[in-house]
Amino acid sequence: MKHTYLMTPGPSPLAPEVKLALAKDILHHRTEAFRNILKDVHEGLKYVFQTNNPVLILASSGTGAMEASVVNFLSKKDKVLVVSGGKFGERWQEICKRYDLEVIVIEVEWGKAPSIDEIKNILDKNKDIKAVFTTLCETSTATVYDVEKIAKVVSQTSAILVVDAISGLGADKIKTDDWAVDVVVSGSQKSLMLPPGLSFVSISKKAEQLMESSNLPKYYLDLKKALKAYAKDDTPYTPSVSLIVALKEVLEIIKKEGIENIWEKFDKISKALREALKSLGFEIYSSSPSSAVTAVVVGDISAKKIVSGIRNEFGISIAAGQDKIADKIIRIAHMGYINAQDVVMTLSALEKTLKDLGVKINLGDSVKRFQEVYYV
Amino acid sequence: MKHTYLMTPGPSPLAPEVKLALAKDILHHRTEAFRNILKDVHEGLKYVFQTNNPVLILASSGTGAMEASVVNFLSKKDKVLVVSGGKFGERWQEICKRYDLEVIVIEVEWGKAPSIDEIKNILDKNKDIKAVFTTLCETSTATVYDVEKIAKVVSQTSAILVVDAISGLGADKIKTDDWAVDVVVSGSQKSLMLPPGLSFVSISKKAEQLMESSNLPKYYLDLKKALKAYAKDDTPYTPSVSLIVALKEVLEIIKKEGIENIWEKFDKISKALREALKSLGFEIYSSSPSSAVTAVVVGDISAKKIVSGIRNEFGISIAAGQDKIADKIIRIAHMGYINAQDVVMTLSALEKTLKDLGVKINLGDSVKRFQEVYYV
Repeated sequence: MKHTYLMTPGPSPLAPEVKLALAKDILHHRTEAFRNILKDVHEGLKYVFQTNNPVLILASSGTGAMEASVVNFLSKKDKVLVVSGGKFGERWQEICKRYDLEVIVIEVEWGKAPSIDEIKNILDKNKDIKAVFTTLCETSTATVYDVEKIAKVVSQTSAILVVDAISGLGADKIKTDDWAVDVVVSGSQKSLMLPPGLSFVSISKKAEQLMESSNLPKYYLDLKKALKAYAKDDTPYTPSVSLIVALKEVLEIIKKEGIENIWEKFDKISKALREALKSLGFEIYSSSPSSAVTAVVVGDISAKKIVSGIRNEFGISIAAGQDKIADKIIRIAHMGYINAQDVVMTLSALEKTLKDLGVKINLGDSVKRFQEVYYV
Repeated sequence: MKHTYLMTPGPSPLAPEVKLALAKDILHHRTEAFRNILKDVHEGLKYVFQTNNPVLILASSGTGAMEASVVNFLSKKDKVLVVSGGKFGERWQEICKRYDLEVIVIEVEWGKAPSIDEIKNILDKNKDIKAVFTTLCETSTATVYDVEKIAKVVSQTSAILVVDAISGLGADKIKTDDWAVDVVVSGSQKSLMLPPGLSFVSISKKAEQLMESSNLPKYYLDLKKALKAYAKDDTPYTPSVSLIVALKEVLEIIKKEGIENIWEKFDKISKALREALKSLGFEIYSSSPSSAVTAVVVGDISAKKIVSGIRNEFGISIAAGQDKIADKIIRIAHMGYINAQDVVMTLSALEKTLKDLGVKINLGDSVKRFQEVYYV
């Protein structure tokens, strides 16, 4: 009779219609029927990514799409700028270094947003920077970066802007074309409410031009080949058929709900959740908090103990921190199929778990606070 | 009321328990519950691959695992031998060339098996060959290669043997350890009866040693990282959770049935199918026919017309050829969840389709012949 709930920043829960779609018989991928689905999915992705450019689908986790966004646009010894303030910013650095690029790093303090002036400054001094890599929502610190302002700066240069929006897309606002973001990377198991296994890369005309000269080695992640297939609503290699069939359902749900309404919903949920967590005495970890995931500093308590306590008693998965802040913060996601009622239920379970761990809190305080802020 | 049937060499049909597993709620991948599943899956894969070495799981199509088997074992300018007689042998060549390796190619005539002497000869003359790449079942020509004999030759040298068993594994016999095959690559959508989206790489101790010195660039496909995670029943990046949960079901089915029995079943089905197709006047395309897929030359008729005819009227997907023989052959798969009854039904539909296309055949001939050969 025990329920399980995913309140983690990926994977996120599945909608019932998505689960049913996953249980369907497999379609052959080289058929008219599948190409029609792919056509709809390509259109639906443009809407979620807010772009008129192609959004390519890869059979890989998000990291595969991040690597694709390095090896397809750059060439040996190219200079790049990585704006990095968490585990996923570090991943951009690692990938770029693995391919022997000349990497300039802006080390942003974890939990803070980057300084736009610093980015501008470095771009001014390094006219040969070919690409700027950064993050929409830095999942490890629950911090949203001001991609609109970053794009304003980068779009004035010859560099392309590549944004890891794996956890952010569909919760933190991003307007790919309006803001002039060249490449947006995402994954299936966050706001797109699917199991992990698909990743996405949107490609602007400016980025497409860089692809022409790119000489880094690639095969499976070759986006030029993928782009050619995309034009015929096809894929270069066998696609993840069942995930794509389920994605069609998801994109219809999102379209119906309206992306602006979804952004607003998660903005509202995250605001109310922050107030609720503050009412328990917690401090919000990020000074630029994301609408996709919320992190609080747990002080003397062990984050891992909270996470295992709430999972063992309530079947609710929330996340501790990662790397150097692994035991210092807890993270609660609000993305995809998650709604305010899920957050209420999580807060109620969190209160009980904290009480069991000997923390002095009053049962009901955070739930009440969430309700007060959310239901206005 | 129209049924659909997948008689293609990938994707292959899903068993009912697999579909139900795919429809389950998502587990978080960094939990004890998921690690336990991964542990069982790792054991089950060893059985199917007939190895005591690790079988790594990637979230990619089979091509990703092929590329991983190049970039993780080799270094810049290394000399390799590719034994290639079809589209997937060509893929080995393409990947190796993309990474600037020195590639010697044995061009095997399409539909034929390679000469073991020729392989031995080249290895004798090129002691510096680091790896030999070949195929178990060359899907494009429905041809099985004698991997046991190839391994006998390669294992006498310092080179590793890397076998693309994407469509072959689980239908064409392969005994990875007994035969001393170093690296076996496979995919989820063939005999493993899953949707596409997972790929696999088994790694011998000899291959693991080559990994230590490999200097080709990689990140997402880094098997050293994957091997480290594997030791803790974990994955370096977010795994395809739902496919792995369903894989556990599949591996239990295979274990119960017994891999030897499965090899024997498909051997018997393929023999009966070849006789059945010959009774319609077709010539078997391959002189070394696979137990996973059967190809026949269609002569003056268009293969594509047969494929679309049988799909449109009966909902049955079979495959035409690929590349230079695209319109010259049809291919019928027998792998994974497919059984003799599916083949009977396909033959009956094929007869009707051929009749509609004006081919002079007698209805019932091939079905009868299949029954006569199979039910003995």
